[in-house]
Amino acid sequence: MASAKPIKKPKKSVALSGTEAGNTAICTVGITGNDLHYRGYDILEFATVAEFEEIAYLLIHEKLPNRQELTDYKAKLKSYRDIPQAVKTVLEQLPKETNPMDVMRTGCSALGCIQPEERDHNKPNAQKLTDKLVASFGSMMLYWYHYSHHDKKINLVTDDDTIAGHFLHLLHQKPPRQSWIKAMHVSLILYAEHEFNASTFAARVISSTLSDIYSCMTGGIGALRGPKHGGANEEACKIQLRYGSVQEAEKDIRQRMANNEIIIGFGHPVYTVSDPRNVVIKKVAHDLSVENNDMLMFDVADKLESVMWDEKKMFPNLDWFSAVSYHQMHIPTKLFTPIFVIARATGWGAHAIEQREEGKIIRPSALYVGDEELAFVPLDQRK
Amino acid sequence: MASAKPIKKPKKSVALSGTEAGNTAICTVGITGNDLHYRGYDILEFATVAEFEEIAYLLIHEKLPNRQELTDYKAKLKSYRDIPQAVKTVLEQLPKETNPMDVMRTGCSALGCIQPEERDHNKPNAQKLTDKLVASFGSMMLYWYHYSHHDKKINLVTDDDTIAGHFLHLLHQKPPRQSWIKAMHVSLILYAEHEFNASTFAARVISSTLSDIYSCMTGGIGALRGPKHGGANEEACKIQLRYGSVQEAEKDIRQRMANNEIIIGFGHPVYTVSDPRNVVIKKVAHDLSVENNDMLMFDVADKLESVMWDEKKMFPNLDWFSAVSYHQMHIPTKLFTPIFVIARATGWGAHAIEQREEGKIIRPSALYVGDEELAFVPLDQRK
Repeated sequence: MASAKPIKKPKKSVALSGTEAGNTAICTVGITGNDLHYRGYDILEFATVAEFEEIAYLLIHEKLPNRQELTDYKAKLKSYRDIPQAVKTVLEQLPKETNPMDVMRTGCSALGCIQPEERDHNKPNAQKLTDKLVASFGSMMLYWYHYSHHDKKINLVTDDDTIAGHFLHLLHQKPPRQSWIKAMHVSLILYAEHEFNASTFAARVISSTLSDIYSCMTGGIGALRGPKHGGANEEACKIQLRYGSVQEAEKDIRQRMANNEIIIGFGHPVYTVSDPRNVVIKKVAHDLSVENNDMLMFDVADKLESVMWDEKKMFPNLDWFSAVSYHQMHIPTKLFTPIFVIARATGWGAHAIEQREEGKIIRPSALYVGDEELAFVPLDQRK
Repeated sequence: MASAKPIKKPKKSVALSGTEAGNTAICTVGITGNDLHYRGYDILEFATVAEFEEIAYLLIHEKLPNRQELTDYKAKLKSYRDIPQAVKTVLEQLPKETNPMDVMRTGCSALGCIQPEERDHNKPNAQKLTDKLVASFGSMMLYWYHYSHHDKKINLVTDDDTIAGHFLHLLHQKPPRQSWIKAMHVSLILYAEHEFNASTFAARVISSTLSDIYSCMTGGIGALRGPKHGGANEEACKIQLRYGSVQEAEKDIRQRMANNEIIIGFGHPVYTVSDPRNVVIKKVAHDLSVENNDMLMFDVADKLESVMWDEKKMFPNLDWFSAVSYHQMHIPTKLFTPIFVIARATGWGAHAIEQREEGKIIRPSALYVGDEELAFVPLDQRK
């Protein structure tokens, strides 16, 4: 695989593009232009057959679990669903208008005060904290959501077998459809890990000072929050819901392209041929739409995919049909990026732990472009 | 200055050492081996004559303020001292045992929920938020400190003229000595900015996704928390307080060096000759010690400086005599790194704003060192 690595041109819109900032055994992205491997396994081999918990285990605990390990792991994750009362009180202070990513960032940081990492930073404990956060991020989000939006203090403990089911159950306050749970597994798996993307790299920079897991995670959330990163699936959704028909969508997008408008949900800083996750999530979006007998959004997204390819040779990334999928599961748009957090927390944790083992602080240089050798003028002589 | 730039060898213990990760007009570090410039001004020209607010203005608002601008700026900062009741309630949830850096991270994140950045991310507003955080970080810290340690809800509004005075007043709950205020100005100025150090770089990675100022700041706090970064002044303090005499200190440190123990507070990933801030903070530490008629800690630190130079040719960094200075002002050791936050928040804010203007996402590559092309084994066939 590494030997077949093609020479990639660094992208001008990306700082440190193509520069190796460290070693990893967790992931490769786009080695052949359109492939993605987690710890050596091609995502196309498992994305539709595995449960998210299997892949979380692979990323955090470094191997695929056998049946017994998976059963034990899921039981452990289930036991992590509730959050301390102090964190609930913190979440209750955050107004309805708050960006849900700010809620995630604050909930994570507060949990780090109530249940801090042990000072010796041993690896099993760091893995456990990562598991805890992966299992309870949905709880935090939905506790705040129902409290701030519906004035309701929900119970965070459910009998659902998986993180996917638990999330949908808490959100809709009823046991979820099996097809939706399945769709959520696929989505969480696809969003789980992506090498040195900006949020993971932020987590690694923080980890490199030997800070704690919670600090790495809050940094990851902060970076993912940006519209150039995790916010893209929410933007894609807004585009797809803008139109009353496929024809209207096509006409409008052609017009926008003529005006050089950037269409969110297309292209990628690393993949050159296509995003391998697109074909997987597109089928999920399609099947959910058929089941709901509600094809307009999917058809619009599908048409815009063709138009973007015909006109610009740009391919949709994971965000494009994730938007359709989440919308079909009646997930409010503003919760899309928080779901990304639940998934990617597996990758952030794995990378934070790996960076600690690497033992180097990340401290690049800068190119200085400012004024040089100015003479300091005392206050009373300044104009 | 740039033309005189010597070729520096990348350090093996530092990832991306010597690699330019972006442009900056804010700072240069160690161009001649032992100099530090903020926006073109040599810190040695202003560190002992300026107020911290002048330098905060220089970093955040990109020029030295004249008398009127400084007066207006200080009045504005003064008006930012109080924090919303919701943030106070959040801080009240955090136990006494919490790492104060986790408190800072959580308070900052919570404030970002209550008073979020405007969506258009305009520069004057980003500068204002940076000012607000610089002015209120001390309030957050000391509100939590007195509440959790002394069961006291302190008033955060004081009449002190400066951030330095406000901090000392809130901490000690009485108007501070002029000499201590002066010492605090020097210390805050020296800690304010340091180019692409790990915490600032974390803030820039987060900013590069176009995330908000609060996310950049929480990332900065998370990175600074690590013992390889901001935690060093607290470690230095513990070393210096360990000894009952200068002789005992010298003997013990020689023994530890013989055992290859790393002595925190010495050496630096960028400076090669000396840390230019040391001579400045050393005088502050000396004068405060003389005033307190309490020379032991200073004398120990001074002796260890000579021993480290004689034996290892290692020089003390800013943290070494900062520890003595803070201790002489009766600041609890665990609040040393939070003071670093108050100071460095000026640099983080300036860099976050600059990174936005740069317009690039920071997304390096990794060197893959893991397993390749593993075949996915279905769950029931795994051993």
